[in-house]
Amino acid sequence: MKENGIGRGRIIRRTGDGALEYQHDDLTVEEPLEIRIADKTLATTMRTPGHDEELAAGFLFSEGVLRSSNAIQNFSRPATARNRENIIRVHLKPGAKLKLNSVQRFGTISSSCGLCGKESIDAIRQNFPPIKSKSLRIDIETLLSLPTKLRASQSEFARTGGIHAAGIFGADGEAQFVREDIGRHNAVDKVVGRAFLDRKLPLDRHLLLVSGRASFEIMQKALAASIPIVASVSAPSTLAMQFARESNQTLIGFLRPPSFNIYSHVERVILD
Amino acid sequence: MKENGIGRGRIIRRTGDGALEYQHDDLTVEEPLEIRIADKTLATTMRTPGHDEELAAGFLFSEGVLRSSNAIQNFSRPATARNRENIIRVHLKPGAKLKLNSVQRFGTISSSCGLCGKESIDAIRQNFPPIKSKSLRIDIETLLSLPTKLRASQSEFARTGGIHAAGIFGADGEAQFVREDIGRHNAVDKVVGRAFLDRKLPLDRHLLLVSGRASFEIMQKALAASIPIVASVSAPSTLAMQFARESNQTLIGFLRPPSFNIYSHVERVILD
Repeated sequence: MKENGIGRGRIIRRTGDGALEYQHDDLTVEEPLEIRIADKTLATTMRTPGHDEELAAGFLFSEGVLRSSNAIQNFSRPATARNRENIIRVHLKPGAKLKLNSVQRFGTISSSCGLCGKESIDAIRQNFPPIKSKSLRIDIETLLSLPTKLRASQSEFARTGGIHAAGIFGADGEAQFVREDIGRHNAVDKVVGRAFLDRKLPLDRHLLLVSGRASFEIMQKALAASIPIVASVSAPSTLAMQFARESNQTLIGFLRPPSFNIYSHVERVILD
Repeated sequence: MKENGIGRGRIIRRTGDGALEYQHDDLTVEEPLEIRIADKTLATTMRTPGHDEELAAGFLFSEGVLRSSNAIQNFSRPATARNRENIIRVHLKPGAKLKLNSVQRFGTISSSCGLCGKESIDAIRQNFPPIKSKSLRIDIETLLSLPTKLRASQSEFARTGGIHAAGIFGADGEAQFVREDIGRHNAVDKVVGRAFLDRKLPLDRHLLLVSGRASFEIMQKALAASIPIVASVSAPSTLAMQFARESNQTLIGFLRPPSFNIYSHVERVILD
């Protein structure tokens, strides 16, 4: 029924010539994931199963709960719960530092909600200061090559079925990690979580490309990982642009070769 | 700077022929909205400003917090807060009934997170029983006419800029309410909230059309409003299909005339 994020269902299709066909169809799998630290539930997010450890780690890091992957001992599933594959438990090393302020004060937080559990955008800025490094620059040719590389890492189904993708690229334009999810934020949490678990943070020599829109939360998660350049195949929001400008992040939108828009900090794009 | 959900920013555009142009560009406005009952914050969601009362009412209703619009006395903004336009206070009549169980037990909930503050999908089912009525049926011609009608209610910018739209249609195919938002769930909360405030619930003779994907949460919000048919211009998820089947909802996906898919309860579509 479910494999590689794809589920199947019997459907009725009306085709272009008006005929009705009974057939099986592929659908993106959507299931809840409950993220627990030991036995305390911190968040539940609707996600496409797969890379759950990365998703949990990336969420905890980008939300400011965990600062170092050294804090993580391991991950487990509950032994007896009915939907155990939809629950992931993060076990911390003794003495590991947690920043549960926002969680404890404001309750459950969620990766699909930018401000749940946060008093204001200002509080986020306090957690993650603006990017300092200006050393990363990217040329137009490399930039224009990225969407094709992102799609090449996706399955045929994902490309047509609307699964979101997020990719971390080096300054040379080579893909480091690409992850997919039904949720835009989850895809970003997965790639950031992979880098976090591999001790590759900060990603201050890297670029994040997302297949969907660039909203405030995408910029915030990129800032957590110190990513200086964020490119989106689709539209950014006003708040994404404003946040990028104040966080010293370069924001590129509508990256659809041969054209694109630059919304902030153009100095990282080699325009000559 | 901000009008009708559109903000402006100075950008650099690389055009198709490789030229660089400095220009002003329109962006979708994204701002947080904090929903309070009196002075207690229940949720914060990233939304496009406009129709905030509908969004708050629709959220409180579809999340099971409020059952009747009779409970609402009025809405206000805080008098002194710095970002007062991003806070809405819902004032209840004396003795009004609230169901704050999930909010109190699990903390902050969010319209962009299906399961925040909810123990499981089973709990949602207990809040909103399956659709009973089978009287609404829709013919193919009417169904195929809906995407054009939805787009006709949107601005040119919204059609191209990626703002999500949700529309409530009667069985005759006429649009009752259409609302837009940067968040898919917010657009649905706004139309459901409008019907809730106008005392037009249950919408058991109506159809919901969404411009984006049909996820679990869209189906859940439609079920709260007793909407028997949900159509989506894009892909549904596995959980949306499963939920629709169990909730006696007809789910139509990829509604792109002349074709579409039916994922559940085909009996409401007149196929002859």
